[in-house]
Amino acid sequence: MYRSHTCGELRSNHIGTTVTLAGWVQTVRKFGSITFVDLRDRYGITQLLFGEELNKVLDENPLGREFVLQATGTVSERSNKNPNIATGDIELLVSEFKILNKSAVPPFTIQDDTDGGDDLRMKYRFLDLRRNAVKRNLELRYAVNRAARNYLHGNGFMDIETPFLIKSTPEGARDFVVPSRMNPGQFYALPQSPQTFKQLLMVSGYDRYYQIVKCFRDEDLRADRQPEFTQIDCEMAFVEQEDILNMFEGMIKSIFKEVKNIDYTEAVERMTWEEAMWQYGNDKPDIRFGMKVCNLKFPAHTFPTKQSQSALIDGVDFKVFDEAETVLAIAVPGCSEYTRKQTDELTEWVKRPQIGMKGLVFIKCNADGTYKSSVDKFYSEEKLKAIADAANAKAGDLVLILAGTEERTRKATSELRLEMGKRLGLRKDNEFKLLWVLDFPLFEFALEDQDGGGAGRWVARHHPFTSPKPSHIDIMINNSPKVDDLDKYLEHPYANIKANAYDMVLNGNEIGGGSIRIYQRELQEKMFAALGMDAEEQQHKFGFLLGAFEYGAPPHGGIAFGFDRLCSILGGSESIRDFIAFPKNNSGRDVMLDAPSEINNKQFDELQIKLDLK
Amino acid sequence: MYRSHTCGELRSNHIGTTVTLAGWVQTVRKFGSITFVDLRDRYGITQLLFGEELNKVLDENPLGREFVLQATGTVSERSNKNPNIATGDIELLVSEFKILNKSAVPPFTIQDDTDGGDDLRMKYRFLDLRRNAVKRNLELRYAVNRAARNYLHGNGFMDIETPFLIKSTPEGARDFVVPSRMNPGQFYALPQSPQTFKQLLMVSGYDRYYQIVKCFRDEDLRADRQPEFTQIDCEMAFVEQEDILNMFEGMIKSIFKEVKNIDYTEAVERMTWEEAMWQYGNDKPDIRFGMKVCNLKFPAHTFPTKQSQSALIDGVDFKVFDEAETVLAIAVPGCSEYTRKQTDELTEWVKRPQIGMKGLVFIKCNADGTYKSSVDKFYSEEKLKAIADAANAKAGDLVLILAGTEERTRKATSELRLEMGKRLGLRKDNEFKLLWVLDFPLFEFALEDQDGGGAGRWVARHHPFTSPKPSHIDIMINNSPKVDDLDKYLEHPYANIKANAYDMVLNGNEIGGGSIRIYQRELQEKMFAALGMDAEEQQHKFGFLLGAFEYGAPPHGGIAFGFDRLCSILGGSESIRDFIAFPKNNSGRDVMLDAPSEINNKQFDELQIKLDLK
Repeated sequence: MYRSHTCGELRSNHIGTTVTLAGWVQTVRKFGSITFVDLRDRYGITQLLFGEELNKVLDENPLGREFVLQATGTVSERSNKNPNIATGDIELLVSEFKILNKSAVPPFTIQDDTDGGDDLRMKYRFLDLRRNAVKRNLELRYAVNRAARNYLHGNGFMDIETPFLIKSTPEGARDFVVPSRMNPGQFYALPQSPQTFKQLLMVSGYDRYYQIVKCFRDEDLRADRQPEFTQIDCEMAFVEQEDILNMFEGMIKSIFKEVKNIDYTEAVERMTWEEAMWQYGNDKPDIRFGMKVCNLKFPAHTFPTKQSQSALIDGVDFKVFDEAETVLAIAVPGCSEYTRKQTDELTEWVKRPQIGMKGLVFIKCNADGTYKSSVDKFYSEEKLKAIADAANAKAGDLVLILAGTEERTRKATSELRLEMGKRLGLRKDNEFKLLWVLDFPLFEFALEDQDGGGAGRWVARHHPFTSPKPSHIDIMINNSPKVDDLDKYLEHPYANIKANAYDMVLNGNEIGGGSIRIYQRELQEKMFAALGMDAEEQQHKFGFLLGAFEYGAPPHGGIAFGFDRLCSILGGSESIRDFIAFPKNNSGRDVMLDAPSEINNKQFDELQIKLDLK
Repeated sequence: MYRSHTCGELRSNHIGTTVTLAGWVQTVRKFGSITFVDLRDRYGITQLLFGEELNKVLDENPLGREFVLQATGTVSERSNKNPNIATGDIELLVSEFKILNKSAVPPFTIQDDTDGGDDLRMKYRFLDLRRNAVKRNLELRYAVNRAARNYLHGNGFMDIETPFLIKSTPEGARDFVVPSRMNPGQFYALPQSPQTFKQLLMVSGYDRYYQIVKCFRDEDLRADRQPEFTQIDCEMAFVEQEDILNMFEGMIKSIFKEVKNIDYTEAVERMTWEEAMWQYGNDKPDIRFGMKVCNLKFPAHTFPTKQSQSALIDGVDFKVFDEAETVLAIAVPGCSEYTRKQTDELTEWVKRPQIGMKGLVFIKCNADGTYKSSVDKFYSEEKLKAIADAANAKAGDLVLILAGTEERTRKATSELRLEMGKRLGLRKDNEFKLLWVLDFPLFEFALEDQDGGGAGRWVARHHPFTSPKPSHIDIMINNSPKVDDLDKYLEHPYANIKANAYDMVLNGNEIGGGSIRIYQRELQEKMFAALGMDAEEQQHKFGFLLGAFEYGAPPHGGIAFGFDRLCSILGGSESIRDFIAFPKNNSGRDVMLDAPSEINNKQFDELQIKLDLK
C-alpha cells in the first residue's frame, strides 16, 4: 500500500496517528537542521517535517520540485497554523521516506501564476495539467457531465452510443474521413454530430435519448475552435417545441444548482430571432445588461413589421446617414463626460478591421440637460435630443451611432454594445442569464459558394432536418425554391419561412441549439430539393433516413449543447481549450504528441492510397 | 402535447380518467363493429377500443401495422383482462384519434420471434431496434453503463475525456488513420485505447481516472469483432496490483447487483496464468464446472515446476502417444455409456479444422468398475485404470485423451472441455463465475512476422507499458533480449519474465485486463528496446511518454473492460452485435448507411491524397 491517507485529508483529529502519504514535492524549505516539504496530490497539500536525523539523509539525497515522495510519520500539531489550506492545522513528522521517482526541473513552475507561455504549456501538457487552475477546470467539467447525466437519467433519457465510423455526406462543414482497408477505395467519415442516428432512434421508439459524445469538424480553426469537440446530444419523440424548452431549461438549471450552487428559479426569457436582431443586432444577445439598439434607419425588407424612425435623422443633408442603408444607436449610461481622447479611442475601435466601420457619431447627453455632438453642424440641439430620446438615453449618457450597410452595421453595433458593457463592468462573471432565441429563419441564401454546393441557392440555417414552423409548411410546399433575381432573394417567399428551431444563449454565448425535426418523407424530400439535392443525391446520402420515415416515424425534436463551451462559461473563462484535457492548437496539431504525423509505406499500401501533394 | 401518459403506465386506478396516448400500432383486430388496437411505445402496450362510430372512420382510413397513432379516450376496465402485461387490466375507449404518420408494411415482423434474417434486420436496423429483444439489450447496456459510472464516481474516479485524433504508432493491431487537410501529407490515428493518455493523467496527478470510451482497431474482423468498440477504461496512481484487483472486483460485483440483482458476495477466485494453462489449457477458463485437464505428457520447459506423468502412458509402444509432444486428458462425468456413434461423433468433432486434432482416444470407466478403451490393445485394464485415476475419473465417466503438439493439443483439450461442459448443461446462463488470472508472461516470442515488426523477436503480450513483476525486473535489466537460437527461445531468460498483469474472466470470457505500468524512463526504454525499437523510433513514437516519465511519474496501474462483451455476457448472448445500437458487419460495413463509401474529388483534392488501388 502506497498511502494510508491523501494529502488533503489530515486534520487535527488525526494528531498522534501514524500515517503514510504519497505525492509530489511542491516546495522544499530548509531551516538549519530541519526541512519542511509541502507534499501535493490531487486532494491537497500537507506539510512534512524532516527532523535532524532524516535531514542528514536529505543532504545526501536532495529533494527537488516535483519529486514523487512516499513518507510515513506521526501527525503533529503545527506551531504556526496555516488557515489558508484545509490541512493547515497539522504537519507530518516524518519517520521514514522513500523517493518513488525523481523529476527533472520542470520547464515552467507548477503554480496558478505559472511562468510558462502557451506553447510551452501545450508541449508539456502533462505538467500543465498539474496546475490547480487547470485541475479545477477539469473537475468542473466532470461535475457538469455528472449533473447533466443525472438530470437526464432522472427524466427517463437513455444513453445510447452511436457509431463513429459513418458515411461521408459533405455539406456545411467538412468531414474528416477514414480510409477503409477492408473496402479499398472507400472511406468512412467521422460524425459531425449523431444527428441522423438520434433521429433513427426516435423512429425506433427510444423516445428519450442522450449522449455526451465527441463530434468532429474539419474546419479552418478560428480561435477557440477545436477539430474534435463534445456535445450533450439529446432527442425526444412525441414532443412539441414547448416540451423541449421546458425539459432543457430544467437541465441547465439543474447544472447551475449542482455545479455552481445557483438557484436559477426564474423562467428563462424567450425572444424571437427577429427581436434579438432588432434589439441587440445579434442572435445571441447578452441580456445581463440593457443598452438596447435604437433602429434609426434600416432596410424595409429586413424588418417588415417594424416602424422606421428615419425622420429623426433625415432632411439635414448629413450624407453619412443619408447614404447609409442602416443607422443604429446605443445609449451608454453615465459616459457623457467622455473626453475627446476617449471618444477618439472609441472611433478608432470601431474602425478596426474586425469591426470595419468608417466612423462613429456621438451625442453627449449632458447632466445639465444640454446636448453636444460630433455632428452639431448638421443637427440642432432639439434634433439631438429627439435622437437621444429615441435611443432611451438619460441625462449623463453617451449615445453612440453607427451607419453603413445593414449586416455590418448591425454586427458592429452589437460588438460595440458588448465592448461598452464590458468596460462598464455590466458583464459580471458571476451573473448568469439564460435566454431562448426562437423562430429562426429556416433558410439562408448563399450568394457566394460556401461549401462547393454552388452559389445563388438556399442553404439550411440550422440543418436540413429542421422542420418549418407548422404554419409555414405550406409556403414551402406551394412555392418553388428557384430564385430568379439574385438581388431580390429577400423577396422570395422562402426568405420568410421560419424554423421550429431554438437556441439557448447564456451570457451572450450560444450554448445549445436544436429544432423540431421533419418526420414526413415528402417534406424531407422537399427540403433536400430546396437545398439543391436531386433525387439521386438524396438517395445516396440520406436514403436510410428517407427509408426510415416510411415506416412510422413519430414527431420528434431535440437539442445539442456545446459541452466545452458550456463548461468554459460556467468556469468563467473565454477559452474552451482550458477545459479540455488534451486540446489541439489552431493548426489542429497536438504539439505534445506531435500529431498528426507521417505514416509508413506499409500503411499506405494496405489502405491503397497515396499522397498527392500540391 | 402529444400524450398525457405512456403506453406502459395506465392501471385500474386510472379507470374513468381521460387520457391521450401516442405510439405504434402493434396489432389491429376487428370484431364486427368494433376494433381493438394494441398501441406500443418504449414503455409498454395498451389496448385501444374503437367503438361503432369511430369504427366507420377506421373503415375509410384503415390502420396498418407500425402506423403512428395518437388516441384520446377514457380509461375503462377490460372485460377479459390480460395478466401477461402490466396494463392488462384496462383498455382505452377511444373518443378521438389522429394518424400521426403512416407506415409501409415492414420487411419483417416487429416481434421477439421475427421472421427477418440477419442481413435484412441489419439493413433496416431502425426497425430491428423496435423489437423487444433488442430494446432489452440496449436497456441492459445503459444499466451497466450507469452502474459502472456510479461505482467509479463513488470511489473518487473522474471521467476525463481523451482525444480521438491522435498519433499513429503502429504495432500490434493496425490503426485507422485520418488524413489531415490542414497538415497535408500527415495523418491522425484513431485511438486503439486511451492507454498513453491515461498514463499521462496519472503523471499529471489525477489519481483515479475513468472513461467509457470508443476505441478503434483496423483488424480483419473475426466473427463478433467490431472495428469500433467500447471500453470501460480506468487507471489509478499510487497503487499495487492488490488495490486494483479489489477496486475492480468491487465494480463488477456492483454491476451484478444493480443490473442483475445478484449478490456476488464471495471473493473472486484467483489463479496464475500457469495454473490456468495447466488445469484448463486456457488463460480464460470457465470455472463454472470442473473437468480439469490431466497433464499426462508435456514438454519439460513449458511447466518447469510440474511433475511429468508420462510413465502412465509410456512403454507400451503406442506410437500416437510416444511421438506426441503433449498428451492431455479430461474426465467427462457420467458419459461412460456413450455409444460407438457418439464417440465417433466426438472424434469427428476434434478432427474439424478449427480444432485440428488427428484423433481422440477414450476410456470408458464403466459403472461396474471395468474399463474399456479405444486403445485396449496397447493398454491393460490396469493401466487404463491408472490413467483414468490420474484424470480424476469416477465410475461412469468417460475419459477423453488428445495428443499432439503442445499448443494445439492444449487448445483443443480446452475447446473439448468447454464443448462437453455445454453439452452436459454445466455452463448455465444464469450462473456467473468471476476469476482473476494473474502473472502472465511479459513477452511472447514471434517466430513469424506478425505486424511488420519482423520475425524472431519478442513482442509484448499485454502492451509495452506493462511492468514486469518487481522480482523479475532484474532479469530484464541484466540480460540482452537477443535470441541466438530461435528454436530455443523458450530457454532465454526473457521467456520466464512474468508481468504485473491481470485479466478478469467471466464464465470463460476475458471481460477485462490490465497491468501495473512501468513508470521509470530507463525501464520503459529497456522494454521498448526489447521489443526491437531503436532510440530514434522510441523517441518518434513515444517521446511524449518518455518525457513525461522524467518529471515525477508516480507508480500507477489500471484496467480496461470490454464493455460490449460484458453486456453480452450479462445479457446471456454470445454476440456483442446484439448489444450495439448500430453495429457493423464482418466486412466492417454499416449496411444500413451503406458505409464506407466513395468520397468526391473535392475531398481528395483538399486532403491531397489519391487512390492507389491494386
